[in-house]
Amino acid sequence: MAKATYKTAGVDLDIYADSMARLPKLMTKTFSPQVMRLDGGFAGLFALNGPARQYSDPVLVSCTDGVGTKLKIAVAANRHDTVGIDLVAMCVNDAICCGARPVIFLDYVAMSKDDPVLLEQIVTGISSACQETGCALIGGETAILPDMYQSGEYDLAGFCVGVAERSEIIDGKAIRKGDSLLGVASSGCHSNGFSLVRQAVFELGGYKVSDPVPELGGKTVGELLLTPTRLYVRPVLDLLAKYGANDGIRGIAHITGGGLVENLSRILPQDCVPAIEKGSWPVPPVFDWIARLGEIDEAEMARVFNCGLGLVLVLRPDVAADVAASLAAMGLDCYPIGKIA
Amino acid sequence: MAKATYKTAGVDLDIYADSMARLPKLMTKTFSPQVMRLDGGFAGLFALNGPARQYSDPVLVSCTDGVGTKLKIAVAANRHDTVGIDLVAMCVNDAICCGARPVIFLDYVAMSKDDPVLLEQIVTGISSACQETGCALIGGETAILPDMYQSGEYDLAGFCVGVAERSEIIDGKAIRKGDSLLGVASSGCHSNGFSLVRQAVFELGGYKVSDPVPELGGKTVGELLLTPTRLYVRPVLDLLAKYGANDGIRGIAHITGGGLVENLSRILPQDCVPAIEKGSWPVPPVFDWIARLGEIDEAEMARVFNCGLGLVLVLRPDVAADVAASLAAMGLDCYPIGKIA
Repeated sequence: MAKATYKTAGVDLDIYADSMARLPKLMTKTFSPQVMRLDGGFAGLFALNGPARQYSDPVLVSCTDGVGTKLKIAVAANRHDTVGIDLVAMCVNDAICCGARPVIFLDYVAMSKDDPVLLEQIVTGISSACQETGCALIGGETAILPDMYQSGEYDLAGFCVGVAERSEIIDGKAIRKGDSLLGVASSGCHSNGFSLVRQAVFELGGYKVSDPVPELGGKTVGELLLTPTRLYVRPVLDLLAKYGANDGIRGIAHITGGGLVENLSRILPQDCVPAIEKGSWPVPPVFDWIARLGEIDEAEMARVFNCGLGLVLVLRPDVAADVAASLAAMGLDCYPIGKIA
Repeated sequence: MAKATYKTAGVDLDIYADSMARLPKLMTKTFSPQVMRLDGGFAGLFALNGPARQYSDPVLVSCTDGVGTKLKIAVAANRHDTVGIDLVAMCVNDAICCGARPVIFLDYVAMSKDDPVLLEQIVTGISSACQETGCALIGGETAILPDMYQSGEYDLAGFCVGVAERSEIIDGKAIRKGDSLLGVASSGCHSNGFSLVRQAVFELGGYKVSDPVPELGGKTVGELLLTPTRLYVRPVLDLLAKYGANDGIRGIAHITGGGLVENLSRILPQDCVPAIEKGSWPVPPVFDWIARLGEIDEAEMARVFNCGLGLVLVLRPDVAADVAASLAAMGLDCYPIGKIA
């Protein structure tokens, strides 16, 4: 009988050390002066008060999310540097809905066997999205779980903490009947509904990730579907600074699983309903393509996908046109889609 | 061709709603007055300053961890209410190493298909450990990932944020040569090294989870190995209040993967090394049993498992005996295991 070691059991601590050596440079790129360095320590440390901001009554706003089976497409396409952007986006876009500035991010990566190159690609995406959104990537866990994942597959979970002064928290109480709804364009499916996408495109449509899709501009299926989730943090923080939380900006909804109506309803007071004008924004062709391949009916599309709007702002009516112009100036397409009734 | 729906793709939103309906009661049990209720909102909100404590220069201490392939044993034994305790413990025991009070916890649960009963069992463990450690379970994500996990299997990730005043952060700088090392007993393997445990016990030892182990008191293999990770939060917070962070209590190391020496080294200044007296604490019989079944050599055991000590305190020598008496009074076995050299 052979002697058992961690290595024979599928966990090679030397390869793990190689993996861990690749991460610090990706993490430090995201560091602000508020990150307190404690190399080798058990936790990531972040001083809440920094040179730019002192909080008197801070509220921590925390979110967690994953990327779902979009990961299966990354694995099939062997392209791993975008799903980390999705991971960060799914969390930070939730945090800003409360009016919070995302400050900390941590990731959990689980894989069947250690693969330093793959891990570095994944965390490169996470790091770049953290830099873009001003989040410090101050911790994470890489779990090697032989027998739990198929070879080459992995799962990701992300965790974000944002901070806001208590008075800045957007809780929906400022929303009034008559407020304007402004939809902000998504970049595609973001990170929701990918089990349905995969059934429609691969199983029913018969496509492979490497197939080009001429009717959508000739990109491959993999390129189209791996388009990263849009990061709304900087534009929203700009708008909050300019128009005021609970003043001009009265509500923010991240459109994820559940679709437009369900996610918008999450932030509305009980006596308010969204009155959305059908056809008031262009549904990107990728959604029509998916619907056609899977023969998915309209109602199902609407409750699974963002259908072109990744974020909806509830605005005091008199600032709505101004906010739209500000977003356009930041390069984001947006559409007046209705009002609160 | 059948019409594709989210349900035919493996995600049933009605069952998902059943799952989600089971969680609020488990979450609210953990709530302190600092949790700001925002039902349906996109994030969990926690007001840092509460009736018991106002922070002037707060540092956020964040940790993430998983349970590893201990989950495979829970699945084999069909016992799912303890792994949540492990999940919380792996994170909060890291947070207290910095001297922080854990305040927020979020969980990520990924499963192949929605199973409301299974999810409730998992979150019951998480909720009970959060209550025990004073953490508010204010968010989480349940990901249904068909084709990524085998039927009945799941993965867990946990995220914890702790808070400490900047002056209370334990960063190892207070550690001096001559300081005493006090080891605090673990409850077993905690949540590390389970790939090796499984190889030794099941593959080489030929055991099944339901087999009793007479030489270890007759418990089944499943019961023995699923013993939850010990939660050190309350005892450590008591000790910090009594003996002072960086005063009497100069360092705290959570003994996880890497074992005693590696984890202790993480908190020591560069010019300090631990001088550990061999045989100064009793190695619990479960470790000898695992080593024997897998013919695992002593060095490998020491670098993979906690071998009986789940936490090590670095103490100012004059308080060491007092601290040991305090821990004993709290029902925790502890052992002087050496000093800093």
